[in-house]
Amino acid sequence: MAPTPEGSEDTLFPDFPRGPLQAYRARASFNWKELALFLEGEDILRLKKTIFSTLENDPLFAHPRGHDLSLEQYRELTFRRHKRLFEHNFLHPSDLQQNPLKSLVLVNCLGMYDWSLASKVILSTSVFLSAIYNSGFERLFEYIPKVFSMEISGCLALTELSHGSDTKAIRTTAHYDPATEEFILHSPDFEAAKFWVGNMGKTATHAVVFAQLYTPGGQCHGLFPFVVQIRDPKTLLPVPGVMVGDMGRKIGLNGLDNGFAMFHKVRIPRQNLLNQTGDVTPEGTYVTHFKDDRQRFGASLGSLSASRVCIVGMCVTNLKLAVCIALRFSATRRQFGPAEGEEIPVLEYQLQQWRLLPYLAAAYALDHFSKSLFLDLMQLQQGLRGDDRSSRQVELGREIHALASAGKPLASWTAQRGIQECREACGGHGYLAMNRLGDLRNENDPNCTYEGDNNVLLQQTSNYLLGLLERGGPGGTRCESPLKSVNFLEAYPAILRQRFEVASLQDCLDSAVPLAAYEWLVCYLLRESQQKLNQERKSGSSDFAARSRAQAYCCRPLALVFLELTVVRRFHEYTHQPGVPPPLQALLRRLSALYGLWSLSQHTALLYRGGYCSGERAGKLMESAVLELCAQLKDDAVALVDVIAPPDFILDSPIGRADGELYRNLWAAVLQGSGALERASWWPEFASKPVVGSLRSQL
Amino acid sequence: MAPTPEGSEDTLFPDFPRGPLQAYRARASFNWKELALFLEGEDILRLKKTIFSTLENDPLFAHPRGHDLSLEQYRELTFRRHKRLFEHNFLHPSDLQQNPLKSLVLVNCLGMYDWSLASKVILSTSVFLSAIYNSGFERLFEYIPKVFSMEISGCLALTELSHGSDTKAIRTTAHYDPATEEFILHSPDFEAAKFWVGNMGKTATHAVVFAQLYTPGGQCHGLFPFVVQIRDPKTLLPVPGVMVGDMGRKIGLNGLDNGFAMFHKVRIPRQNLLNQTGDVTPEGTYVTHFKDDRQRFGASLGSLSASRVCIVGMCVTNLKLAVCIALRFSATRRQFGPAEGEEIPVLEYQLQQWRLLPYLAAAYALDHFSKSLFLDLMQLQQGLRGDDRSSRQVELGREIHALASAGKPLASWTAQRGIQECREACGGHGYLAMNRLGDLRNENDPNCTYEGDNNVLLQQTSNYLLGLLERGGPGGTRCESPLKSVNFLEAYPAILRQRFEVASLQDCLDSAVPLAAYEWLVCYLLRESQQKLNQERKSGSSDFAARSRAQAYCCRPLALVFLELTVVRRFHEYTHQPGVPPPLQALLRRLSALYGLWSLSQHTALLYRGGYCSGERAGKLMESAVLELCAQLKDDAVALVDVIAPPDFILDSPIGRADGELYRNLWAAVLQGSGALERASWWPEFASKPVVGSLRSQL
Repeated sequence: MAPTPEGSEDTLFPDFPRGPLQAYRARASFNWKELALFLEGEDILRLKKTIFSTLENDPLFAHPRGHDLSLEQYRELTFRRHKRLFEHNFLHPSDLQQNPLKSLVLVNCLGMYDWSLASKVILSTSVFLSAIYNSGFERLFEYIPKVFSMEISGCLALTELSHGSDTKAIRTTAHYDPATEEFILHSPDFEAAKFWVGNMGKTATHAVVFAQLYTPGGQCHGLFPFVVQIRDPKTLLPVPGVMVGDMGRKIGLNGLDNGFAMFHKVRIPRQNLLNQTGDVTPEGTYVTHFKDDRQRFGASLGSLSASRVCIVGMCVTNLKLAVCIALRFSATRRQFGPAEGEEIPVLEYQLQQWRLLPYLAAAYALDHFSKSLFLDLMQLQQGLRGDDRSSRQVELGREIHALASAGKPLASWTAQRGIQECREACGGHGYLAMNRLGDLRNENDPNCTYEGDNNVLLQQTSNYLLGLLERGGPGGTRCESPLKSVNFLEAYPAILRQRFEVASLQDCLDSAVPLAAYEWLVCYLLRESQQKLNQERKSGSSDFAARSRAQAYCCRPLALVFLELTVVRRFHEYTHQPGVPPPLQALLRRLSALYGLWSLSQHTALLYRGGYCSGERAGKLMESAVLELCAQLKDDAVALVDVIAPPDFILDSPIGRADGELYRNLWAAVLQGSGALERASWWPEFASKPVVGSLRSQL
Repeated sequence: MAPTPEGSEDTLFPDFPRGPLQAYRARASFNWKELALFLEGEDILRLKKTIFSTLENDPLFAHPRGHDLSLEQYRELTFRRHKRLFEHNFLHPSDLQQNPLKSLVLVNCLGMYDWSLASKVILSTSVFLSAIYNSGFERLFEYIPKVFSMEISGCLALTELSHGSDTKAIRTTAHYDPATEEFILHSPDFEAAKFWVGNMGKTATHAVVFAQLYTPGGQCHGLFPFVVQIRDPKTLLPVPGVMVGDMGRKIGLNGLDNGFAMFHKVRIPRQNLLNQTGDVTPEGTYVTHFKDDRQRFGASLGSLSASRVCIVGMCVTNLKLAVCIALRFSATRRQFGPAEGEEIPVLEYQLQQWRLLPYLAAAYALDHFSKSLFLDLMQLQQGLRGDDRSSRQVELGREIHALASAGKPLASWTAQRGIQECREACGGHGYLAMNRLGDLRNENDPNCTYEGDNNVLLQQTSNYLLGLLERGGPGGTRCESPLKSVNFLEAYPAILRQRFEVASLQDCLDSAVPLAAYEWLVCYLLRESQQKLNQERKSGSSDFAARSRAQAYCCRPLALVFLELTVVRRFHEYTHQPGVPPPLQALLRRLSALYGLWSLSQHTALLYRGGYCSGERAGKLMESAVLELCAQLKDDAVALVDVIAPPDFILDSPIGRADGELYRNLWAAVLQGSGALERASWWPEFASKPVVGSLRSQL
């Protein structure tokens, strides 16, 4: 290994323990410390180290992560850990001013440790306060210091038992009573109970509740957020009129208390309406500066798209953890071999490389996307705070909304499939709970659903792209967006005429190849989608029916390929920029090419069908390129994992430990299991024998 | 609904409670009772009813299935339920003689209730006894009545900590000592500990242990099974020399105690060698009627393939449960609609149909495959018992091995993906543990791994097909197998010249279309695989390396498409046979066509690349056919679910109950949750506030 490029990294980069992974580490083509510094910078690496070692050194954070605890115990532990985080207070406001990425890093570091904890932190503070900060009345800013000192704890209550995706159909009401200058919050029946509210089950004292606003006379003005106290902060007992409870066990995230609430004519002051998009005067007159309810509604829910950007990072984090475990396992697990008595690491098998290395590349590519999209979001929010009403700001908002709405589906599905592949690639040992792949799968799963079901969200992105067509572009007329993600559509007709033209396998090993193919794919599916919609409308379908019938094979894949293109493009540009240190260039470009080609391979059928590819050679060339890149990357895989893996304490997987002592670690952990070698407490049950057939039914 | 076709089914088919699902039930094109009778027959339906109502009426089987129990409690409960099953004794040997499918039905009925219980039943009895019965010495038949009276409890110990797939590398030894006429069983180190043995963790008293047999002088004769006592049946304490323990929590199946064991020079009588394939004389001479160890090894492991057939059924059962839950949810969950204030069931959306109905069709197609393969296996086992050594019997064994080795991967992956899609299709409510989709996913997961990792097993099937080529066929020479699954290969060259020729959408709505395409696909991939292997060998690769490099894009998909073809073919023939009652013909053919076309759509890229399809029309026609079949089937979906759904008590999912009262059932179950409305026991923790930043690290 080459000497490290800087002097101060010794404390940042303790050497790995020697062991079975040494062989792969020695064969790596690059210095992992150099890559870590290039990707993250010393400042971020230092923050990560602080968070990780703080958790490791505080006994309250000693595992178990929840397996062997009852629901009540796990929730208590998570609450206590959350409280302890206030004492550790990892980030000051000044840290965030200096580098806004630090908040993303903090969330993902906590998530690497335990998503129940990380989610509880986010939901009770950021999500609650953002709703107030972004759409609130200044009077309500009083809540901010209270939340940051844990005097109160917040939550955001939007979905109801019978309504999730279709938020407009939310049925909780808020009637204004001018006599007392109060709103009366009410749930008409249990189907309108607020449901799935994170941190509401046992903890939250205050909620931002979305309800239909009615003024005297009975006119409804649509959905608005209200701040409502639901529990007494001294006793955690519900306040009168509020029935609040815990939903019980979920597939994962059981340290987090998701809850429900019904309101029985609960009165709250007029000022508790979060009034950015509309307000009610003391006398009961509704006022707004929006032209119509649709526009107002969009603005009031706009703040939700920040959550989607955050979820992209959560998914990438899960994918990283899974590939770290599976690749360290694969580099140390030996099975079969070329000769009798010789066994080789399963990572040496082409099939194992093909199963896992694309997900390693995806973790790197999506990580870059996640960070860059987060910075785009910061730019947007800065504009909002500066009250920027320029058309660029509006366009930026639309573009980020489109990227986040398909970015969340792409990232969550990629992580979901990747974790499953990693689980299977570790065979039986991957099925042991202690190795964590089950938890990762169970805790990544809700990312596919919350803040908008993936399939529903994708429509936002395809609508954005189809909207560009209707607004004049693409093809001929100007098509430009602040982040340039749709600028290529200016060349729409020319792109549709392009064909797959790659001379050799060597030429195919660059992400320029999938990049070009993806541009064609987006244009092709954009045209297909528009044609399908037009055809449906011509044959008399309503707009609703036409859109419904264009999803499966047109609009849905359109949104996904557009996002894949964007991820490939951003990672291509990042890895091909002049600033990449020369020793890292080849490596990063391989990762970029592998992600691009592998991702593209889901769409080969369309490339052929639409005429971009023809003949056997094109398809085979792309397959060979994927396998060749896997072969080129397999000796770097362990070092690439070292760059993204958290310390063993955080990764918390015996088969994924940095020393690579797979069996020693696993065996030790099994023997340390509670009662592993003890006789079952119910052994006398075995001694008393059943009378066979004594209860056999006489049918 | 038409009148029911027979008179006696009233007790078999109680009417469903009226409720929100009524609308779909009324629109069904067929009588669900007629379909149930046609598919299963009255006898099987009666057995199912007996099992299900027995469990429902016995308080020991009252839920919870395990969520809120500690590991120890869940294992105790599962043990007690297992013991109770001896008393219920659902099947007599005479039942099985009359209809061997009944044993498959029993396993799957128990599995529908709880896979921990079903697995414990199978592992402790059938798997243990099959090993003895199929390869044992008659003296050991004494164990059979002891197992059936629960005097002892068995397990099968093959895999070790460091070896699973590569069974030849198992390291436990059995040295023969002629002085005492005993074998000395020994684990050289902890990496050779038996690992993952189901029922061994806390319960088993006896194990069939696979070990390398050594005769005096130190010659090794390969892997043999031995019967070894590991615990005292009176006390459940380990016998001296055996260290046996529990592996701890797994991702699922936690009512089942998987265990490990190390042997320290444990002496067992010579007769405890299961000697069907080889034996040791009292003096210590090894004798066998097999020519070489490879042949012997194959015969000794042959009995394992029965497990794979059984697992196919387990996967289908899981898929059935998941689609039942997701489709009843989709038929009652309303969201959005064509007009303001109008909401339609999400099942009305084409996208939701496209996500779920193919898995419903897959459940039907794979269920038929599972049953027919099980009957094929019974035929094989009958021959084995009759000591049939004909070449047809040998060929039958090979063919079933090939079908089971890829059938298990196909069924387990289809179920895995199907359950995931169902989970997501139920949105947030699908993430609530009580709705069971998480359990189904977690408990189907090991089907991808045990009895052979899916990717490793697929090689057995591709080797079988490639072996046919080497043995003269296909193409010109005779190619025939007892079950006729490879007979089409006789027309290999002609099939490769065939092209997709479908005149209209109407013509595309029959499974004959995917059947023809699949035959072409198998031939194409067979040729591709052979060419790839030859090319690798020509360029100097070893056989090991050549096979490794032909997996990802040749042999692996070859095995899968061959199995998909077989499933499509069998279901096509079943649904097109003259015996299908006329009112069911159109329905069953739609299911067959949908499964075939949807499954085929994974391979459209190859169909184009290899020239079977060309132009845009072919691909679009297949897509339109899938959507058209979904539209035709959506009004039948609820009735199709009624045919395969177990009673509510067994399905155990509030959102999947037969009355369709989605929200009432869910709300009731949430409110009944333990402590749902209670204040957290740890509320005083909230009252004492953290000192913010007091522990902040001073880096």
